[in-house]
Order: sequence, then structure tokens, then C-alpha cells
Amino acid sequence: MTAPDVVARLVAELGDRVDVSDAGRAAARADKSGQAASGSPLAVVHARTVEDVQATMRIASATGTPVVPRGAGTGLAGGANTGAGEIGLSLRSMDRILEVRPDDLIAVVEPGILNGQLNAALAEHGLWWAPDPASRDISTVGGNIATGAGGLLCAKYGVVRDAVLGLDLVLADGRLMRLGHRTVKGVTGLDLTSLAIGSEGILGVVVAATLKLRRLVPGQARTIAATFSDVRSAAVAASAVTAAGIQPAIMELMDATSLAASHRLLGLPAPTPGASQLTVQTDGPGATAEAEAVVAVLAAAGGTVRLAADDAEAQQLWTVRRSMHPAMETLGTALIEDVSVPRSALPAMFDEIARIEERFGLTIPTVCHAGDGNLHPNFIFDGDEVPEVIWEAAEDLFQSALRLGGTLTGEHGVGVLKRRWLADELGDDQWELQRRIARVFDPAGILNPGKVFAP
Amino acid sequence: MTAPDVVARLVAELGDRVDVSDAGRAAARADKSGQAASGSPLAVVHARTVEDVQATMRIASATGTPVVPRGAGTGLAGGANTGAGEIGLSLRSMDRILEVRPDDLIAVVEPGILNGQLNAALAEHGLWWAPDPASRDISTVGGNIATGAGGLLCAKYGVVRDAVLGLDLVLADGRLMRLGHRTVKGVTGLDLTSLAIGSEGILGVVVAATLKLRRLVPGQARTIAATFSDVRSAAVAASAVTAAGIQPAIMELMDATSLAASHRLLGLPAPTPGASQLTVQTDGPGATAEAEAVVAVLAAAGGTVRLAADDAEAQQLWTVRRSMHPAMETLGTALIEDVSVPRSALPAMFDEIARIEERFGLTIPTVCHAGDGNLHPNFIFDGDEVPEVIWEAAEDLFQSALRLGGTLTGEHGVGVLKRRWLADELGDDQWELQRRIARVFDPAGILNPGKVFAP
Ligand SMILES: Cc1cc2nc3c(=O)[nH]c(=O)nc-3n(C[C@H](O)[C@H](O)[C@H](O)COP(=O)(O)OP(=O)(O)OC[C@H]3O[C@@H](n4cnc5c(N)ncnc54)[C@H](O)[C@@H]3O)c2cc1C
Ligand SMILES: Cc1cc2nc3c(=O)[nH]c(=O)nc-3n(C[C@H](O)[C@H](O)[C@H](O)COP(=O)(O)OP(=O)(O)OC[C@H]3O[C@@H](n4cnc5c(N)ncnc54)[C@H](O)[C@@H]3O)c2cc1C
Repeated sequence: MTAPDVVARLVAELGDRVDVSDAGRAAARADKSGQAASGSPLAVVHARTVEDVQATMRIASATGTPVVPRGAGTGLAGGANTGAGEIGLSLRSMDRILEVRPDDLIAVVEPGILNGQLNAALAEHGLWWAPDPASRDISTVGGNIATGAGGLLCAKYGVVRDAVLGLDLVLADGRLMRLGHRTVKGVTGLDLTSLAIGSEGILGVVVAATLKLRRLVPGQARTIAATFSDVRSAAVAASAVTAAGIQPAIMELMDATSLAASHRLLGLPAPTPGASQLTVQTDGPGATAEAEAVVAVLAAAGGTVRLAADDAEAQQLWTVRRSMHPAMETLGTALIEDVSVPRSALPAMFDEIARIEERFGLTIPTVCHAGDGNLHPNFIFDGDEVPEVIWEAAEDLFQSALRLGGTLTGEHGVGVLKRRWLADELGDDQWELQRRIARVFDPAGILNPGKVFAP
Repeated sequence: MTAPDVVARLVAELGDRVDVSDAGRAAARADKSGQAASGSPLAVVHARTVEDVQATMRIASATGTPVVPRGAGTGLAGGANTGAGEIGLSLRSMDRILEVRPDDLIAVVEPGILNGQLNAALAEHGLWWAPDPASRDISTVGGNIATGAGGLLCAKYGVVRDAVLGLDLVLADGRLMRLGHRTVKGVTGLDLTSLAIGSEGILGVVVAATLKLRRLVPGQARTIAATFSDVRSAAVAASAVTAAGIQPAIMELMDATSLAASHRLLGLPAPTPGASQLTVQTDGPGATAEAEAVVAVLAAAGGTVRLAADDAEAQQLWTVRRSMHPAMETLGTALIEDVSVPRSALPAMFDEIARIEERFGLTIPTVCHAGDGNLHPNFIFDGDEVPEVIWEAAEDLFQSALRLGGTLTGEHGVGVLKRRWLADELGDDQWELQRRIARVFDPAGILNPGKVFAP
């Protein structure tokens, strides 16, 4: 069947849900990774119902046309990038909350709801869904699930994998599978819910999710900031906090370059040259006692420590961390990396980054979820095209993380950006095993082809 | 190849690891489900190393001989039962702790270590692994992982799925796959670690696990017991505790028959006829305040409430709950069931149990992990063979749980006992999808055949 025929069939069945405008198609080419697909998709379907998704997949299957599921397009791995000959399938308009059960601590939602919108609605019930990517106000719950998103709070409150009980998944051939449970416990058969989490749109389209909720944490959170003369000392101090048995809600590390860039963007006085910062939040009924314990550990580790007196001061401290993304953009184009290492290996990983900077003559501003060992080194360059030297440096970064017992991607996923290193982490045998499992869900390989497992 | 040839090959490669004694083979026929395989296995291999496991699987693959992995054989679904023509593969002797990292809150262990042994060793580091099946002193960590075990503490501290970061899995053909991470976060490729958890030995043999640990909870736990005039009121009271936003560490419900049987076994005065009991534990720094809140909710719900004054009194209260299994044995042979429902549906599930008792003329003593909605109704009968009326009653129980949004098995697994109802919960499409995924791991179907997916 020719491309115009596929589009005609989509329009015949789905009418105004099908966007064939140049602008609409062009917008589906890229996510926030800085990469874009070559060419524009045939069309973008804006599904409003499960049946819309099923109809799209049936037409795609019948015609052998690739489909790329898409939430809000905030991904950082190119997973939602949609190119020539493909159908973009946007779930963003399926954004209803279907059910909230405070007594069972669950909610059932459509995939297109923004994480922040969901939590605003849940707050009225005294509840929240814990995964909190820094993109929570602009990313969808379906996208969070498809990427297995993390966030700032996850050392204490868990990642997406810990917060989803069940999923409704539409397969490549249009069949709807209801995976998982509404119950806290359940071990009937294989855990396909967990398998679908983080599968980046290659196993099926998430059309609904049963989420495990928490009650809002009572008490006033406390915020601590500490500066250190260099990034290694800050990393050692972060490990000392964990080793002391304290469990902060958030613990973020900014290296000297990223701290300076944020200060500059916000018009704050320049930090001491070379200074790195740890920003820590404690919460719950014991927040103040824990904050005081954090202050003691950080001071003993050589930090210049400040415990925010009130919420206004705390917000100010967090603004510096939150300005990291826009601050990077003032330096050039950023390739945001995402390696993760065991917490004790953080100082060693910063040594590796310093070595890589030296080796390739680059500056690699880095922020880090220090509570869980997840680093975001930013490779800065000019123009749109990632220069080859940056890929070489990134490869060195990945190999270093693996050597330290870490992983290529802590939370952003593989997408197109990391597919060429996937087998380095998994080994060829496991790579092949995983690809075969994907083929069970999607024998013809029409769901998000070229992502994750592509050579 | 004939059976004697298979055994000869095992002995040639594995020597004294191979037990061909009648007693050894007979012991592998059953777990604690009350069911046994027909016939005795060819041999039982007591693996001591990963290589032993790989050698066993290679011989099994080459000769087309089924293999049944086995931990301590405490399972309640018949998953480890090994019969004629099969090889039993015991992991119990692989019981070393390979690594404990208090700074990273992880441990790497072999599969055969008993859960209780592990926690005794971890306690020296101020750490623990949270999954706590009531069988923790007699069941292996590998078995806990293979069944996706739950326990008493899991509403607050999670189930096995929440507490494993990585697994080493030997496939049917003897290849070793290293799944997962040592890091808190990691989303590289498909989450095969989660898929293997709860897979009951049909995807591969767990030969090592990287466990996510917690620090020991500080403070003195508090225990509350409350009796209610009937089981429904106790269930309503349990839901009221959850709905009040209190998160007890443990909340266990015993119905009148099980409570009376435990009292009788322990030589305690008989409880008021019809009386049910809730036993609740709070822990952590806020244990006493939370305990007082629990007391208030339970009293308001009509309970006769007692807050244990000291640890000795608390232990006495828990002894009543812990005596449930032996107490059932005084009543006859017990088929221990394991349905789970959303917490709000607990009272309705007890109504269903009362209806089923009436319909089939049975008494079904029931204990329940009320904090997470997991019920263990005990079907009592005489002799070794489960009578047909009990299977009919069990089927009614399963259908009732499914109608209430629940599941066939909260923590014990499918094994042989529930395989005929598996498709009722999954649907035929998902049943087939799951079976195909299992075939990717084990194309010839030699790993634990006849379990989970068998017709
Ligand atoms: C400023 C900024 C900060 C960020 N901070 C974080 C962070 O702290 N932690 C973190 O984990 N990520 C972070 N991200 C990355 C991104 O926001 C997350 O990956 C997010 O989960 C993506 O959601 P989305 O709706 O935008 O998905 P998209 O980008 O649209 O899609 C992402 C992937 O999921 C698939 N997909 C989307 N929806 C579905 C569905 N319904 N069914 C099947 N597949 C689907 C797509 O095919 C694609 O492979 C950040 C991004 C930005 C721009
Ligand atoms: C008194 C009593 C109380 C119990 N309480 C609970 C409870 O509270 N919660 C709960 O969840 N369970 C409970 N159980 C059930 C049982 O203890 C658990 O299922 C436990 O996890 C089984 O561990 P095991 O080592 O005995 O495994 P086994 O019974 O030997 O095996 C169980 C299953 O796992 C597979 N298997 C075992 N080891 C491996 C391995 N290394 N690799 C691959 N597959 C393997 C077997 O093939 C089988 O399918 C209880 C049992 C008893 C007798």
C-alpha cells in the first residue's frame, strides 16, 4: 500500500484526529534531545480514546507502517522522534483521570495527563504520585511510564517502577491487554507491567495506568545548601550523608561550571571559583532533626553550610538548581547525558569526568542526583549537529560508568541516542534475548522501530 | 537418551552433587502445598556453584530432560514439586553472602541462603532486607525471588519486586545472563530483572541476586490487639485504619475459627464465640503516637482494644497470630489459599467467604494481611487428597476475588495449584502472550514444565 493510501485509511477511520499539516508533522520529528528524525511523518494521529489507538495500530499492522507513540515530546533520548514513512501517535489528548481511590491509595489515569496536573488534582485528596522528573510540569504520565522516569525524590520515594500497579497496553496488532492489578500484592503469571515500564514504546502503547499513590508527607520540609572547594569534596560529602544513615528527600549536586552558569543566569553574585554546591531537602515529621544531622555531616566534610530559615529562602536555593537547564542553553547546545553509578562510586565518577574533560579538551558541566548516584554531564557544543569528538567523549563516559558498576542511562532511556552502546552494557546474548522478547509483542517490528534495539 | 544415561552424565560431570538415593529423590516430590508430583525424579542435583547449575542445564538441554529448580521447598503452590523423568535442581547449598555494601545499601547473595540467616548477618551492619514471608526462617532468598514473595510488613516496606536490583539467571541452555543493575536507578533496555521476579522457575535459575537493603528502623515498635464481635467489623476497622492515613508496619486479621484454634493450641482461654482479632504493629520514631492513633480508630470502630505495655506482652500477642499454621493442622489437612483484593473490598470479600462457607457447607478459617488486602482462607479436609467440593469452593473464591478487582494469588504463586484458573484472570490473549515470552527464555520448555502455564 502506498503512503497516500495509508493516510487515506487513517483519515477515513479517524477523521479530524489525523493531522496531516506540515507544521503538525514537522513538530513530531523531535523531542528535547536535540536530535530529530530525518524527514517528516506521514501523519500524526491525536488519539482521544482507546479505540482510536486500536484503530491506528490495526491500520498500521495491515499496511506494515511504523508507529511512534508520543506523550509530550520532552524525552531526552530521541525516543519519540518520528520520521519519513512513519505515523506519529500522540496520546497527549487522552488526559483524563478515570478514578481516584483514597481508601485504596490508587488512581487510574489516561496516559496523556501531565504529571504536574495529576498531582495538583491528587493534592485535593491529600495524595500524590511520587515520580517527579524535573520535567513534571511538561511531561506525561504515559511518557514517564514508557521511559521509567526518575526524578529528584526517588532515592526516598522510588521511581516509576515502584509506583505503577497495572497498565492497559495496546499491542502492535491493535489488541488490548490489561496487565497487572489493582491490589498491592499480586503474582499471577509473569509481571508484564514491570516489563512494559521503561520499554520506550517498543512493546505497546500505554492507554491507561493504575498508579500506586502516597499520602502527602506531613510537616514542613527543610532545605540545606553547602558549598565545597571542589566537586570531589562535594561528592564525598554526599556519600557521607548516605553513609550516616540519613535519608534526605532530595540531594542535588552542582559542579562549578553549572553553578556559575546558574548564578549568572539569575543575576546572583558569582560563586567562589571552583566551588561546587550540594542542595539537600529533608521532609516528614523529623525534617528539622534530620536537617540538623545533615548540617553536621556536611560541615564535618568541609562544607560551608546554610540551613534555610524559611520557605522563601529554601525556594531561592532550589531556583539555582532548577535553572540548570536554561543556564546550559546560555553556554551553547547541550547533549544531556545520564549515567548512574553506585552511590559510593560518585567521587570516582567525578574523577573520570575530569579526566575526560582533560583528554578531549572539553568542559562538561555536571549536575547529579547525589542521593541515588545518577549524573547528568552536559556536553556543550555549537550548532545543531553533535560533533564527533563529543560522541567519543560520551563513549568514554559510558565505559567509565560501566567500569564503576554503573549504567548507561539512569532515567532518560536508550531511544536513538544510546542504541549503539546498548550491547556494551547488556552483552550480546542479553541484547538478543531482549530483542526476541520485543518481537513477541510486535512480530513485524512496527512499533517504534529503530529505537533501543536498532543496530 | 534413556533415563539411566541422563543420570550417568550428571554423575560423570557433577559427582557427589548428584543425589540418586530413594530418600533424596522422594523428598523432592513435594513442597508445603500438600500436593506431590507423581513419581520420583531421576536425581536431585545439589549445586554448589554457578558452573554446577550451568552444567546441569546443559545436560538437561542436550537430553531434553525437564529440570525443576528448588530452594527450601516451603512453597505453597506446588511449584518445586519434582516428578518422574525430571531432574531436581536444589540451590539450597549455594548459600553464601558474596558482598554487603552498607554505603550503597546493597548486598549480593547466592540464592540458597535462608531469608532469616541473611537478615541476621545484615543486622550486624544495621541493615535488613525487607521481604518477610512468615516462612522467612525456613525459605530461601532465591525462592522468595522466584515466587515474588510478600509477607507481613509489605504494605509499609514493599514486596520482593521492590527490593531486588539485579539477578544472575542461568537459562535453559546453560547460558548465564546478568540482569539489572547495582545502581538505584537504571533503565537500559527491558527490565528483565522484574520479569524474572515471581516467574516460579520457568524462565531461568536464579544463581545470584543484588538486593536493595534498608537500614534497621530505629525506635521501639508498638503492638495493638483489638477484638470485634464478627469478622466483617474487624475488616471494616482495618480499612478505617488505612483510610485514616495511618501506615502500620503490620496489620493482621484472624477470623473467629482461626483465632479460637490458635487459642486452643496455645492453651489460652477461649475467645468470645464469633470474635475476630486485629493485631497491629507500628514502628519507627513515631511508633507510640501512631499506635495511639490506631487505638482511637479501632475503638471508634467498635473494637475492644489493648495496647501492649511492653515487648513481652507484644510477643504474646504475635504468638497467637504465628500459631495459625500449626493450629490449622489440628483441624485437619489445610489447603491454604491466597487471594488478594483492593483494601476497600476486604469487608465484601469476607461476605463472599461467608457465602461460600454456607453454599458448600464448609468452615473456612481465614487470616488476612489486612494492611494490603491479602487473604489466606484455609480449606480444611480429611486425608491427603483435596476433595472435589473444596476445588469447587476454591473456584468460587477465585471468581469472587476477581469480581472485586482482586487476584488469584497475592504472594504464593500459581505453581500447579492455580494453573487451571490462570487464564480466567489473564484472559486467553495475555495467557498466550506470556507463554510465548517464556518460550523465548526456554524454547524447548524444559524448565519447570507443567507449572504456571500448563493446561
Ligand atoms: C527540562 C527537562 C528535565 C527533565 N528531567 C527529567 C528527570 O528529572 N527525570 C527523568 O526521568 N526524565 C527527565 N526528563 C526527560 C523526559 O521529560 C522524561 O523522559 C519524560 O518521562 C518523557 O515524557 P513525555 O511525555 O515527554 O514522553 P515523550 O518524550 O513523548 O516519549 C518518550 C518515550 O516514551 C514513549 N511513549 C510516550 N508515551 C507513550 C505511551 N503512552 N505509550 C507507549 N510509549 C510512549 C515514546 O515513544 C518515547 O520512546 C527531562 C526533560 C526535560 C526537557
Ligand atoms: C509456614 C509457611 C508460611 C508462609 N508464609 C508466606 C508468606 O507470608 N508470604 C509468602 O509469600 N509466602 C509464604 N509461604 C510460602 C513460601 O515460603 C514462599 O513461597 C517462599 O518464597 C518459597 O521459598 P523456597 O525457598 O521454599 O522455594 P521453593 O518452595 O523451593 O520453590 C518455590 C518456587 O520457586 C522456584 N525456585 C526456587 N528457587 C529458585 C531459584 N533459585 N531459581 C529459580 N526458581 C527457583 C521453584 O521452582 C518453585 O516454583 C509460607 C510457607 C509456609 C510453609
